[in-house]
Amino acid sequence: MSARTYSAVEIIAAKRDCRELTRDQIDWVVAAYTRDEVAEEQMAALAMAVLLNGMDAAETAHWTQAMIDSGEVLDFGDVGRPLVDKHSTGGVGDKITLPLAPLVAACGAAVPQLSGRGLGHTGGTLDKLEAIPGWRASLSTDEITAQLAEVGAVICATTPTLAPADRRLYALRDVTGTVESVPLIASSIMSKKLAEGTGGLVLDVKVGSGAFMKTAARAGELADAMTAIGAAHDLPTTALLTDMSRPLGRCVGNALEVEESVEVLRGGGPPDVVALTVALATEMLALAGITDADPAQVLASGAAHDVWERMIAAQGGDPSAPLPVARHVETVTAERSGIFSGADALAVGTAAWRLGAGRARKEDPVQAGAGVRLLVAPGDEVRAGTPLLELHTDTPDRIADARRLLAGAALLITGDPPPARELVLDVRRG
Amino acid sequence: MSARTYSAVEIIAAKRDCRELTRDQIDWVVAAYTRDEVAEEQMAALAMAVLLNGMDAAETAHWTQAMIDSGEVLDFGDVGRPLVDKHSTGGVGDKITLPLAPLVAACGAAVPQLSGRGLGHTGGTLDKLEAIPGWRASLSTDEITAQLAEVGAVICATTPTLAPADRRLYALRDVTGTVESVPLIASSIMSKKLAEGTGGLVLDVKVGSGAFMKTAARAGELADAMTAIGAAHDLPTTALLTDMSRPLGRCVGNALEVEESVEVLRGGGPPDVVALTVALATEMLALAGITDADPAQVLASGAAHDVWERMIAAQGGDPSAPLPVARHVETVTAERSGIFSGADALAVGTAAWRLGAGRARKEDPVQAGAGVRLLVAPGDEVRAGTPLLELHTDTPDRIADARRLLAGAALLITGDPPPARELVLDVRRG
Repeated sequence: MSARTYSAVEIIAAKRDCRELTRDQIDWVVAAYTRDEVAEEQMAALAMAVLLNGMDAAETAHWTQAMIDSGEVLDFGDVGRPLVDKHSTGGVGDKITLPLAPLVAACGAAVPQLSGRGLGHTGGTLDKLEAIPGWRASLSTDEITAQLAEVGAVICATTPTLAPADRRLYALRDVTGTVESVPLIASSIMSKKLAEGTGGLVLDVKVGSGAFMKTAARAGELADAMTAIGAAHDLPTTALLTDMSRPLGRCVGNALEVEESVEVLRGGGPPDVVALTVALATEMLALAGITDADPAQVLASGAAHDVWERMIAAQGGDPSAPLPVARHVETVTAERSGIFSGADALAVGTAAWRLGAGRARKEDPVQAGAGVRLLVAPGDEVRAGTPLLELHTDTPDRIADARRLLAGAALLITGDPPPARELVLDVRRG
Repeated sequence: MSARTYSAVEIIAAKRDCRELTRDQIDWVVAAYTRDEVAEEQMAALAMAVLLNGMDAAETAHWTQAMIDSGEVLDFGDVGRPLVDKHSTGGVGDKITLPLAPLVAACGAAVPQLSGRGLGHTGGTLDKLEAIPGWRASLSTDEITAQLAEVGAVICATTPTLAPADRRLYALRDVTGTVESVPLIASSIMSKKLAEGTGGLVLDVKVGSGAFMKTAARAGELADAMTAIGAAHDLPTTALLTDMSRPLGRCVGNALEVEESVEVLRGGGPPDVVALTVALATEMLALAGITDADPAQVLASGAAHDVWERMIAAQGGDPSAPLPVARHVETVTAERSGIFSGADALAVGTAAWRLGAGRARKEDPVQAGAGVRLLVAPGDEVRAGTPLLELHTDTPDRIADARRLLAGAALLITGDPPPARELVLDVRRG
């Protein structure tokens, strides 16, 4: 808490003039914003000054702490297992949380995965799980604690009491062109994970056309900022930079991604989804101090699938119920013959969003069945007319838009086989 | 008017990313802000991006035009004389408008001096004139026109219909640390003067401790930005950079400055006030195309004083009524013997403000009689105990504060005579 009172203008002017903000100034401005004593327009000006003039590691760590201090810090007490969590910066077809949480639980850790709602080209993790009949996202802290002890994995909605200043600031940044600030992105993510009380954190920082960070340099900057915050708060943190130039797996959408995740949990599924799930599990288990489990073997054994079924059932879902399907399915075919080099992640993500899988405004509903299913894998030979992918939607008037997004270079067919995909580009440890 | 619709975020992001804003983007964002379709927090973020990333001359000219287009443009029609106006960026003891407007009118031009309220260490021009019993600041456009034709000079309140977007933006900048942007300051000043419909404009850009611009470089940057806007809008504009390291004249306060202005209009008064009044009048007459008048001679002749009395009477004031005096007057004496080198403008201005001559918030009243009167001139020999200045106030509990502000180096006494004051530092023509 801040020991003295400042004026908002004095703090804005300090950052505007490239001065480092003190811990006391940061504490004051975030607490005063939470109490409505710093106005939205003042925080907007400060956010733009931070975006353009930056914050160093100490300022970013203090900013994160001030966000945490604006709300509740969870304490699950002793659930009998080490707590470890994962956060992804988001990508097209990124359903990895769905197989990962049960897998890490099956290996002996507890995963308290508290998620926000998706806003953007695909639905969020909660939107995906809500495709399962009966499943509910909102749990009390007591329910989370009990489920962590009994099942080992929880995927649920974050509570409004965690870092409320971050929630408000994020909404403000969204309308004021101040989202794209590495210190503000890093502190936003880390404040929620630190307030959640995890014992270790693995970050999946996506790089490429379908990711928020388009270049490895920007993604590396974000990864370093987040691992530095972890270190400053004594939270063991590892960041993986992973490829998002192509979608993960073959399915993009809510029910479609649940279906693909269940395939992975049953020992099948697309090799890239399996590989990334195992890579992230390995890092999480290392942070949890669990050295005697082999996640690839646990996945293949079906043990992770057992945890999945218990996790879904514990939250009211029926893991064996049929998933919703879209009312309309159309096929996109190859325009010419050659070798399929892969689909552009942004084009596929935007198409799935237009088909109804994501939302434009936070109050919009999503379609459980909408999305895109790829029918070919990079390297497959195709002929003109070969079906490349399916478009799924309840609103067929959107199909023309989706086709336009997927025309031309979005689905590349060449004369040569594509280079092998490098899925994990870099690892940064805090 | 903008031909198409933008999103506020897209325009904020463009300036954030150092792109030049198009005329269409600027038109849209200012008009949408005026219509409440761009929120205060969005304009705050844009203002900070403009402050940190700048606007070039074309953007600044478009921004100014958009401010003008947000409201009414006055047209005084044919008043039978060339219209010419002056604007000062404000300084301590800057009462120059009071003798200047009648002087230029006495030389044959018409001066439509529409002023805002002062906010800061001294009162504004309207606060000074309101010290005169009966004088009223608010006139209709018809009243202004009639007075310009009959008397040749009007000093009155600006109407809320002139550049309303600027009024709102100024209030927003004041609370968001975004005042200190040269393109925004320049467009704010010039939009109001252009909307007023003057035919020529002389700018008095103050430099020094008592001015907003502390260095000649910053003041020159502002002068160049304003003359460039004038040129882009076909308004003949001349900027003088003038010294504000010391107060202008010997009196700082409302009634005190009226009294000193009347001395100047009667052919007396402090030499610096006379010199600057004549210098600015010379530039204004040149822009008005009046080459046969000698303002120094007209001032000495008493002709300007006649116009002054008619100007005050036309707005309900009694030019021969006694001016209000403060209830308490105390003297500050020299701490040691030597040569008085001058008073620091900021210290004197802040002291006058604390004594009640200025306001802290726009709804505060000012004291008509409060202020500071210097009793010695730079170069005068003083002995320890010689009275240096008087403090005037209705609220004697403020005197200790004022004394503290004027202690030490604020009233410099040295062994050598001070160098001669260079009043006009530079002239920039558009």
